[in-house]
Amino acid sequence: MDKHAGAVSQLVDQLGRLPGIGRKSAERLAYHLLRVPQQDALALAEAIRQVRENVRYCESCFNLSEGSLCGICADPRRDTARLCVVEQPRDLMSLEQAAVFRGVYHVLLGKISPLEGIGPDQLTIDALVDRVRNGNFTEVIMATNPTVEGDGTSLYISNLLAEYPLEVTRLARGITSGSILEYANKEILADALNGRQRL
Amino acid sequence: MDKHAGAVSQLVDQLGRLPGIGRKSAERLAYHLLRVPQQDALALAEAIRQVRENVRYCESCFNLSEGSLCGICADPRRDTARLCVVEQPRDLMSLEQAAVFRGVYHVLLGKISPLEGIGPDQLTIDALVDRVRNGNFTEVIMATNPTVEGDGTSLYISNLLAEYPLEVTRLARGITSGSILEYANKEILADALNGRQRL
Repeated sequence: MDKHAGAVSQLVDQLGRLPGIGRKSAERLAYHLLRVPQQDALALAEAIRQVRENVRYCESCFNLSEGSLCGICADPRRDTARLCVVEQPRDLMSLEQAAVFRGVYHVLLGKISPLEGIGPDQLTIDALVDRVRNGNFTEVIMATNPTVEGDGTSLYISNLLAEYPLEVTRLARGITSGSILEYANKEILADALNGRQRL
Repeated sequence: MDKHAGAVSQLVDQLGRLPGIGRKSAERLAYHLLRVPQQDALALAEAIRQVRENVRYCESCFNLSEGSLCGICADPRRDTARLCVVEQPRDLMSLEQAAVFRGVYHVLLGKISPLEGIGPDQLTIDALVDRVRNGNFTEVIMATNPTVEGDGTSLYISNLLAEYPLEVTRLARGITSGSILEYANKEILADALNGRQRL
């Protein structure tokens, strides 16, 4: 006999499928949702439903959007000469929250990953090349993750873009602001030395 | 301008209200829910809705239940002479998962906590005393959390039950199975010494 009431058990199962949520956390979250006011619990259910019903990808940059164009692509104040290429909408969001870039984006919706069977065709690379061909970008900034696969994806794309009259750059690498040199590994220190800047 | 699409922003807000889920985790979960198949995301929304619509407290023990009596109270094979008192349904669940107790339960739905303004009246203590008065329990096992408030709640209840002909016990305290003595603190070691058992 299942000791959870059926509906509680269902909820624990569903919560346990979320990334980073183990069985114990799922139970704790389920009991939380049972304890809060009804409207608060239903607000979460409704938010999930809404997001799946109303959110799609921007037709231009593949950011998440509730219209055919996302808020950034639809914003006339953005600098349309500079294009920043990221793997996922959440990367775009991090850059936006930092408020350091005023250009536009292109979201690849992944990275080339032979191990996971993800090739260039499964990403939005064709659409990116189309945008570059038809747009008037002066710079494409590759902002994929600083991993083997992210770097590989950037390299692949920069080769594709080589024939267009624009600069392809990538994010600087080095030691992170606020970190402690002693804890930086060899790769970080090599990046920091190779990219050293005049004071 | 909010950089999240409205529905995404709503979902991040709602997820961020869950205990132990910070802003970053909420974003990660929201993107996860956007990425999984539609039916998986909606299954979570539906599980939340179901649980809030169908789950209530057992009329006898205040465990979570989909009927007027929970599965444990409705089970004729349980030993109705022993009553285990816990703070929350999740405590009951932990004991059930350990499968070490075959009696019945009483869920207080909290603990006496003067700092949080929670007195005995806000718990299910009256119902507990009624059950003891009208039942034929031989033992009441206090299984509140081993905290100042949990202990205080147990003490309060054991005083109330003193007039009835039954034994009131509490869970044993000591070192935890599988732990390392070196890391046990003074309180744990004192409990372990005071409760030492003959080999």
